[in-house]
Amino acid sequence: MKRLTLYLREVEHLLAQGEKRVSSRQLGQGLGVTDTQIRKDLSWFGQFGQAGVGYSIEDLAARLRQILGKDRTWKTALVGAGRLGQAILSYGPFARDGFEIAAVFDADASLIGSEVGGRCIRRMEELDQIVRDREIVLGIISVPKEAAQATADRLIDAGVLGILNFAPVRLDVADRASVVSVDFSARLEQLAFQVSLGLKGSIDGDD
Amino acid sequence: MKRLTLYLREVEHLLAQGEKRVSSRQLGQGLGVTDTQIRKDLSWFGQFGQAGVGYSIEDLAARLRQILGKDRTWKTALVGAGRLGQAILSYGPFARDGFEIAAVFDADASLIGSEVGGRCIRRMEELDQIVRDREIVLGIISVPKEAAQATADRLIDAGVLGILNFAPVRLDVADRASVVSVDFSARLEQLAFQVSLGLKGSIDGDD
Repeated sequence: MKRLTLYLREVEHLLAQGEKRVSSRQLGQGLGVTDTQIRKDLSWFGQFGQAGVGYSIEDLAARLRQILGKDRTWKTALVGAGRLGQAILSYGPFARDGFEIAAVFDADASLIGSEVGGRCIRRMEELDQIVRDREIVLGIISVPKEAAQATADRLIDAGVLGILNFAPVRLDVADRASVVSVDFSARLEQLAFQVSLGLKGSIDGDD
Repeated sequence: MKRLTLYLREVEHLLAQGEKRVSSRQLGQGLGVTDTQIRKDLSWFGQFGQAGVGYSIEDLAARLRQILGKDRTWKTALVGAGRLGQAILSYGPFARDGFEIAAVFDADASLIGSEVGGRCIRRMEELDQIVRDREIVLGIISVPKEAAQATADRLIDAGVLGILNFAPVRLDVADRASVVSVDFSARLEQLAFQVSLGLKGSIDGDD
């Protein structure tokens, strides 16, 4: 995925420069990737590009955006409007990166109806209906860990295809949805490990 | 690191059962790892274990704990006591996993002196002194992105060796410290990618 993101950035750069076609060799040169690797990565997603002629930059950009899910806005529901949920709602880059928080839910009756980040907090009982009506496809779970599995089941039953899980618990979704977990403790353990080994510099949480 | 964590768990299990020695083959059997892989992983960290005799389980456990940074308590400072900082402070597993939030700082004068998660919020001006006095070695940054780099510099100047960064910005620390970033947007992009490809099931943020 890292390399595909890199390819898309380079291809969009070429597109902005008015270029029409690019060979895998040209594409690789600026990125420090071999043309063999590029052809291999792209062939995973079907045949596009012709031997000797290279890729149409416009087609390649469109295809990469599609593969990376960047050709659409992802309607997302956030469940759990406590401190963490509020912090997530005020996190800037989501909207820029193609994610729209389309609804916010919480089980705490005292929060219902109040606004957070310009969005009204809804009752859990409304979740199924709203997720269906607004065609929400992703869910962010920022509820206490005891409630996380039930929340995941509920989101999936309502039609959600992917879950970003902030609760410190492993969700069991079998093959009903995709799950990516953000585990603060695991990141801190990773940091302690690096410091123990004397490793310096920056490592992204998504490496 | 994943494998080392796995080895430690298995070794501690054997230790609890009263076992004294284990061969790399025995260790690997329960874990689905070849003995060659285990010997290779462990040899990275120097010579321990003898051919034909195996490893002393007690020594191996101690060494693995040390390598993974689990043989100590990591004193940690949190900078930024807003919503995200408060959410991090109320995150349960930190203490269990060997991390102690030893001080909390914020630049917002209205927060100074108030308590959050049983800890008093301190002024930024006190950071250097407190980090030195309490021998704090890790920092968690949950400040707005504009303030993140200056906060990192300040923590490192005060003696911090590792930073867990929640701000959506890449920190430049050269070789002065270790940095692990938690990038919510990158995790959500990862999820969108998985959903686009129709991949189901659970993937940890730390994979």
